[in-house]
Amino acid sequence: MSLSGRRKRAAAAAQAKGVEALLVTHLPDVRWLCGFTGSNAALVLGCGGGARLFTDGRYTAQAKAEAAGVRVSIAAKPAALAACEWMAAAGVRRCGFDEAQTTVAGLAAMKQAVAAKAPMFAGVGALVAKLREVKDADEIAKMRAAAALGCGLFERMLGVMRAGMAETAVAAELEHAARRAGAERMSFDTIVTGGVRSALPHGQATKAKLPRRGFVTLDFGVVLEGYCSDMTRTVHMGRAGAGKDGPGERAVYDAVLDAQLAGVAAVREGVATSDVDKAARNVLRAAGLDQWFTHSTGHGVGLEIHEGPKLAKKPEESRKAGATRRNAGAEMRKTEAETLKAGMVVTIEPGVYMPGKFGVRIEDTVLVTRSGCEILTPSTKAWIEL
Amino acid sequence: MSLSGRRKRAAAAAQAKGVEALLVTHLPDVRWLCGFTGSNAALVLGCGGGARLFTDGRYTAQAKAEAAGVRVSIAAKPAALAACEWMAAAGVRRCGFDEAQTTVAGLAAMKQAVAAKAPMFAGVGALVAKLREVKDADEIAKMRAAAALGCGLFERMLGVMRAGMAETAVAAELEHAARRAGAERMSFDTIVTGGVRSALPHGQATKAKLPRRGFVTLDFGVVLEGYCSDMTRTVHMGRAGAGKDGPGERAVYDAVLDAQLAGVAAVREGVATSDVDKAARNVLRAAGLDQWFTHSTGHGVGLEIHEGPKLAKKPEESRKAGATRRNAGAEMRKTEAETLKAGMVVTIEPGVYMPGKFGVRIEDTVLVTRSGCEILTPSTKAWIEL
Repeated sequence: MSLSGRRKRAAAAAQAKGVEALLVTHLPDVRWLCGFTGSNAALVLGCGGGARLFTDGRYTAQAKAEAAGVRVSIAAKPAALAACEWMAAAGVRRCGFDEAQTTVAGLAAMKQAVAAKAPMFAGVGALVAKLREVKDADEIAKMRAAAALGCGLFERMLGVMRAGMAETAVAAELEHAARRAGAERMSFDTIVTGGVRSALPHGQATKAKLPRRGFVTLDFGVVLEGYCSDMTRTVHMGRAGAGKDGPGERAVYDAVLDAQLAGVAAVREGVATSDVDKAARNVLRAAGLDQWFTHSTGHGVGLEIHEGPKLAKKPEESRKAGATRRNAGAEMRKTEAETLKAGMVVTIEPGVYMPGKFGVRIEDTVLVTRSGCEILTPSTKAWIEL
Repeated sequence: MSLSGRRKRAAAAAQAKGVEALLVTHLPDVRWLCGFTGSNAALVLGCGGGARLFTDGRYTAQAKAEAAGVRVSIAAKPAALAACEWMAAAGVRRCGFDEAQTTVAGLAAMKQAVAAKAPMFAGVGALVAKLREVKDADEIAKMRAAAALGCGLFERMLGVMRAGMAETAVAAELEHAARRAGAERMSFDTIVTGGVRSALPHGQATKAKLPRRGFVTLDFGVVLEGYCSDMTRTVHMGRAGAGKDGPGERAVYDAVLDAQLAGVAAVREGVATSDVDKAARNVLRAAGLDQWFTHSTGHGVGLEIHEGPKLAKKPEESRKAGATRRNAGAEMRKTEAETLKAGMVVTIEPGVYMPGKFGVRIEDTVLVTRSGCEILTPSTKAWIEL
């Protein structure tokens, strides 16, 4: 879809909310709507069809080059405030904004900028972020390329990792290879956790050495043309332990892999996101391991590493379970019942983390289709001993 | 200063604002106050002295290890909401929060979480961020180490860069060396801009090749133990041009260097931040180049790559100048008259950007002292032809 097509859909969604214009300040939203990649931007979408980008003097040349077909205003003040003043002068009486991307201080400044012409601002929710959940052909091509780059890095790391190597050295080699392959940056801080540290779901790479015997979890992503990849593999250094006091390493790995495959198998247009979570979680429950699966099954990916939809338990189920240590989420918005749509790109990433012992996570990024899904990260998930 | 000492100062600042507790949700603030580095956190500071950290099940082990001396609650809901419910149950009647770090949607959810017990929330400004502007001895040691690592990388890159090399390849080598030297990550997307692209103040590394003759600007930073470094150097590939239609490359370089030295010379405890900006800007004005200096002179650095204070023109002067293409800032808060304090760590980074021709920026990070400043990034700023 063309950028102007995206702007039309966003303007229509805004118009349906009863506003005359939409103020877009979340940078990935701005980029998606007009192509501009600078770090200071506000885009005004008129429901009548016009669009105007506000940024500052550092980006004069860049804005004109990137945001073709959109008028550009260079302002000496914060972009959102310049946009508000411009709207007030243009006679806009009701402007929509995203409450989740506007701070309390920001809204106060916006109101001050338009002075007496308030009430003018109406929270209309994450209209653009919602549209961004379903990727078009151009975006899918970019995400495929980013994911393929990620898979190549994993293969390469299999030949690099060895016992005694620092986690940070593994991350260094991986990121260097990513850069040389053209990655713009990593999509998040590379996670390399070895041995007992594999039980930390979000431990970053440290100076700790890869173990002679034990798991190593690699969770990493690259950014290519703005789009993020995301994948996790867990491999074993040396021979697996026997698991005298609890399930052994191989048993846990196989259970997580089964859960991951069940999650992937559940993905299809029209399926509730919570049912994908349930499919993965039920496998771990049957194996007696679900108490150690302390996060949700997946999330959307695109211009941002974490986007909607979220693949998690139904809110009711979380409450029923009184699950104080499970299924936590950082975001403020209420979780709503959501179904998968063709064109969504989501992760499927169950994990089991046994504190003080070890952990396993396996993650693919998949493209939702009408009949199922396409795995964008087809690197092997077979048990690997290095 | 100990973490508990920091918490005492923050609690005292909150108490002075007339609240009983402070809700801290900005992650660098949380880290600074209690050491926790997870990605989902809310810290409640009671003005009576207590502190409680809220996070989720992914971080159970990590929170207990990092946030010594602070009670930890693991919650299945967003950390800020769990914190609000806990405060409501504890009978807190008036809770301070930072309006610049709380979204409109977040505040609405917080109010809903405490239900009938509102009005309860009072915006108290960026209390913790303000305290963080002045670094203690422990922080200064970490920032010195991060800056020294950055200087080493610049020296190394002098031996790596050559005409025809892609900007991304330069970034790859630089970032790989950073990782191998122990950097946790880069503090922002590495900027490598060659030839005509050096005129883009915030252009990132692209596939463009380094020119046979022309400038290359390197602007990069590393993170070490959480603290950011930040430095920029501009070097020339081949012999400089003569500047037949306008000031030549060498003349612009020398003017920017003089401006940078004037900015550094102006730094001292008690000096207004706008006077440092003026010192640098006046040099470029005298050279007839200030119209191409399209950003402010510097900013604070610490746990975040951009912190207070901002070293910019006085707001009055910006307005007077009607300078629509100058001195823009992305932040929403009002710029206040500020003076430098000993212990602040700030950048001094004037630049001149001549669209379609070339650009030069030179940046140091300096520690403000009573009598002047200590340059944390003492790499050479002499004219270099590679």
